Amino acid sequence: MLELLEELAAVTAGGKPCAVATIVRASGSVPRPVGTSMLISGTGIIHGSLSGGCVEAAVVAVAEEVLADGRPRRESFGYSDTDAFAVGLSCGGTLDVLTAPVFPGAVPAAPAAGAPCALIRRIDDGAEPGPVFIADPAGTAATAARLLAAHGPALGMMLGTDPARAAARLAPLLAAGRTGVVELGGGPRIRPGGAECDAGAVLFLESRLAPPRLVLIGANDFSAALARQGRMLGYHVGICDARPAFTTPDRFPAAHEVHVQWPDAYLRAEADTGRLDARTVVCVLSHDAKFDVPVLAEALRRDFAYVGAMGSRRTHDSRLASLRAAGLTGAELAKLHSPIGLDIGAATPEETAVSVFAEIVAARSGAAASGQPLRAVSGPIHPVNRLHAS
Amino acid sequence: MLELLEELAAVTAGGKPCAVATIVRASGSVPRPVGTSMLISGTGIIHGSLSGGCVEAAVVAVAEEVLADGRPRRESFGYSDTDAFAVGLSCGGTLDVLTAPVFPGAVPAAPAAGAPCALIRRIDDGAEPGPVFIADPAGTAATAARLLAAHGPALGMMLGTDPARAAARLAPLLAAGRTGVVELGGGPRIRPGGAECDAGAVLFLESRLAPPRLVLIGANDFSAALARQGRMLGYHVGICDARPAFTTPDRFPAAHEVHVQWPDAYLRAEADTGRLDARTVVCVLSHDAKFDVPVLAEALRRDFAYVGAMGSRRTHDSRLASLRAAGLTGAELAKLHSPIGLDIGAATPEETAVSVFAEIVAARSGAAASGQPLRAVSGPIHPVNRLHAS
Repeated sequence: MLELLEELAAVTAGGKPCAVATIVRASGSVPRPVGTSMLISGTGIIHGSLSGGCVEAAVVAVAEEVLADGRPRRESFGYSDTDAFAVGLSCGGTLDVLTAPVFPGAVPAAPAAGAPCALIRRIDDGAEPGPVFIADPAGTAATAARLLAAHGPALGMMLGTDPARAAARLAPLLAAGRTGVVELGGGPRIRPGGAECDAGAVLFLESRLAPPRLVLIGANDFSAALARQGRMLGYHVGICDARPAFTTPDRFPAAHEVHVQWPDAYLRAEADTGRLDARTVVCVLSHDAKFDVPVLAEALRRDFAYVGAMGSRRTHDSRLASLRAAGLTGAELAKLHSPIGLDIGAATPEETAVSVFAEIVAARSGAAASGQPLRAVSGPIHPVNRLHAS
Repeated sequence: MLELLEELAAVTAGGKPCAVATIVRASGSVPRPVGTSMLISGTGIIHGSLSGGCVEAAVVAVAEEVLADGRPRRESFGYSDTDAFAVGLSCGGTLDVLTAPVFPGAVPAAPAAGAPCALIRRIDDGAEPGPVFIADPAGTAATAARLLAAHGPALGMMLGTDPARAAARLAPLLAAGRTGVVELGGGPRIRPGGAECDAGAVLFLESRLAPPRLVLIGANDFSAALARQGRMLGYHVGICDARPAFTTPDRFPAAHEVHVQWPDAYLRAEADTGRLDARTVVCVLSHDAKFDVPVLAEALRRDFAYVGAMGSRRTHDSRLASLRAAGLTGAELAKLHSPIGLDIGAATPEETAVSVFAEIVAARSGAAASGQPLRAVSGPIHPVNRLHAS
């Protein structure tokens, strides 16, 4: 419901509660991801959608009951192949939807569009006042204590008798920008009126990080295509090249930032601001040793998700030699994806962008990704019922 | 220079020739593809660019000489690593640029934006009056005779003593939308003043087909992502689903067409119009046997570039059984890419779109594409000096 905070504030400004329906579990291929919400007011105002189909009509009916008695409900929409057509879940997937009242006082202020933030709600029956809003989820990576210090009373009440331990489970998920369910163990819980026992809290976590960074070195048709591809995949795209004639924003409409600077100096400066992290992807596309080698040396010494470089096999060999001479270790050099991309026979810059991002996605998924056609390999096609990266 | 016909007409309307510089050969990675042109008038009007860098300045100087003496020139821009920075070809690539005069009478009418068309020019020293403009290059696939019938005198003069044989070499390239160089053998050639002997003509072909079609069956988040990805790769995108609630244009801003229709009927009707061809890609994403099976039966019986279907391995097995029961042959079933996509661990619809298009590009490149990281395989990264698909 993170995406609806503005609408929530507007709708509850009149002092009346509204109902928010959220997909809290999904299996199979479903139209919208876990965390997607829909807002239904008592006067029939609706924002958002859960599936684009008939699930919405059923959810509105549930929301009316929730608004009438103030109690949350959890419903499953899971269908046989025959029923699927009727409700609009053609894939045989299953959605669990929690529809809960949200009272005016409980609505956190809306974050700036796209700003990192997180929201924690309890979705089992023992609902606490909530939700708890976290403005800096990335900052929680350092320590659960920091999470509790910033959100002590409200969060502590939600987390039970051992809030520090529960917060330690939440902190890495928040820092990684995940959305999904966390079940805490049962036991005595502290409430304003004293301790009581319950079956353990089930928390629903939504978080939104700053988008991951795609750093493209070299201003050419390949970086223009990679910028479009990266933007499509949710990256914040920066392009850097030392040559002012090539490095103009109008050549790269998909880039968020275009910098005329020596690439290694640019990368160092960006890293120093803290904007680059373990999700950062660096693609070096300049084909020119005087730019490539220093910026690759800089990138390979850091902990990025992916570092790739374009160039012929001959260029690659001489680049490796230069990087070795610059003092990089074997482990650092082993991180380099060069020549960049999967072997799919890409010819145009756009096809090359597909080849490169296929390798980036595969690198992120680890050794399990073979690059072979799915029809030629066995095993699951994609994991279901797991925490989804938002 | 196809992309500059409008500007050419405007600049030569005053009755004076202008110079057009065209990349007629490229090796290595260069900023713009073969066929890219730049127009330079005698009064300093410039349209287009060849590299985005200093090549332009050199080309403008050449164009001034061409305008002064009316004779075409061909220049190579090939650079050592050191020189590359200075002229803006940082990759060590080589460009061959032909700069030729274009006289007012020789300018063909500009085709409608994006309409299929082709242009044939002679780029050896024995320049003929030209160029020859072809409004329906796809129609030439049937027969070279048709090409000659439509463009007889001008084209025949360009093609030498055996124009039918030369046209037979051009027709399939025009039909495939290729841009590049065709060398015809030498020998006696017919000229207005009688036969003479020369060393053989070198023709430069530019062609632009209607964009290839991407047919997406099923209206969901995956087809929305595939529509964006397909559009990025130059496809004309149509989405079809039988369910009106899901199948609305606002859900698919990247699609050119959104149709509410039974998918097999839609595909049959589209094929009947002649809009689908051997470049057509069909992705079936509905996960629902009552839609999937009939549309796949329709698609697999035709000669498309790629037919893929989404779904679990269980869905795939039952789909295959249904298709067999519907009478499809083993060879037809072998064409089906299912489960769709390369095994890169795609999780989101956008990542799945990358996985699917990686498979489409690889399928088009044939058996040579391994899907493995380029760093893990040997051999050339991309073919150079070949005819480029436009």
